[in-house]
Amino acid sequence: MRKLFQEDLHNLGDQLTDIAVLVSEAMEKAYRAYETADVQLAEEVIAADTRIDTLQNDLDEKAIELLALQGPVAGDLRLIVGALRMSTSLERMGDLARHIAQLVRLRYPDPVAPQQLVDVYRQMAEKDIQIAKKLVELLVTRQVDLVAEIAALNEQINELHAGIFTAIAADNWDASPSATVDSALTSRYFERFGDHGVSVAKKVLYLVTGQWEAEPTA
Amino acid sequence: MRKLFQEDLHNLGDQLTDIAVLVSEAMEKAYRAYETADVQLAEEVIAADTRIDTLQNDLDEKAIELLALQGPVAGDLRLIVGALRMSTSLERMGDLARHIAQLVRLRYPDPVAPQQLVDVYRQMAEKDIQIAKKLVELLVTRQVDLVAEIAALNEQINELHAGIFTAIAADNWDASPSATVDSALTSRYFERFGDHGVSVAKKVLYLVTGQWEAEPTA
Repeated sequence: MRKLFQEDLHNLGDQLTDIAVLVSEAMEKAYRAYETADVQLAEEVIAADTRIDTLQNDLDEKAIELLALQGPVAGDLRLIVGALRMSTSLERMGDLARHIAQLVRLRYPDPVAPQQLVDVYRQMAEKDIQIAKKLVELLVTRQVDLVAEIAALNEQINELHAGIFTAIAADNWDASPSATVDSALTSRYFERFGDHGVSVAKKVLYLVTGQWEAEPTA
Repeated sequence: MRKLFQEDLHNLGDQLTDIAVLVSEAMEKAYRAYETADVQLAEEVIAADTRIDTLQNDLDEKAIELLALQGPVAGDLRLIVGALRMSTSLERMGDLARHIAQLVRLRYPDPVAPQQLVDVYRQMAEKDIQIAKKLVELLVTRQVDLVAEIAALNEQINELHAGIFTAIAADNWDASPSATVDSALTSRYFERFGDHGVSVAKKVLYLVTGQWEAEPTA
């Protein structure tokens, strides 16, 4: 019985990893669709998001079943509750990738981003994708050094996000009102994606070390 | 022991209600601050949000403690897991009220909203506040008719939200780029607040009836 339960907990971890892999792919494709105004790829991302939602529901049902059948305590209990929370954040990251793809579809055949911001969005997207990939690695390896790396990438995204708002407020900003809104929303989606990534990373850190913040390295 | 546990579950419900009351007050004040460009009131909302975060943490700790000590099953288990999820949504609603207040502070002494949208935002905010108040009532009375009322209000908010984007794309839109972004973000915050309200309402419905959707009324 006890051994089976450990296997169940392990499976829960695998399910989280599977979702994180899909989220990472979703953001990669969403950004590629965004960069190239590829409406077919955007549709793919939008359709694939229901798969993430289904996997999240499956994981949540499994977690609740384990709570019911095993009455876990201490570390095991925190792990299961942690998995429930992480799945919520990962599902939300999938939604944000979908929002990017929906902007592509809405504006097609035009590109969403004004030319002058293309490079900033590329940087934001690349950092988001790095965060998602590091999350997968973190879930698999429990290598907690990755948490600080994820937090650092998120800080960089926050700075790029602030830069977008500065660009929009500048005198030489000449995009249409709709493009202005799209620019701000795109930036916000990329920025929120990173925030949720940090939130998942911190939960892993907590489960592994019992600490909410990474120890300062000596 | 058993009786004590029922009391604990009851307390968990009370804690959720307390948070919902604070969220409702936060949105009322945030909108009042927004409408009147009252930076002091906005600061109050921003400061009060940490109280919501603290209450959410307390509730979550209590819920996890109950899971550990009582090993609940069936309905009691769903109730506790449901409380964990509802607290997350309520906390997010508090964040959205804070975001509105932060826009007020950012633009002070100017108002955030362009004159032509003031009336639409008033309608959105009033519906959000109604949703929050109905949520409090729902948590207290378990009167599930309220769920459909909350969903209907949210539909109205979604329509108003779409209208804002149409207004921004129209030829006569003449607000500055920053005001354009603020308009879109304000609309999105009001819209997301309603979404989270529906999400909490549906969880209550599920806990009370075992159904995720309201029965169509005859």
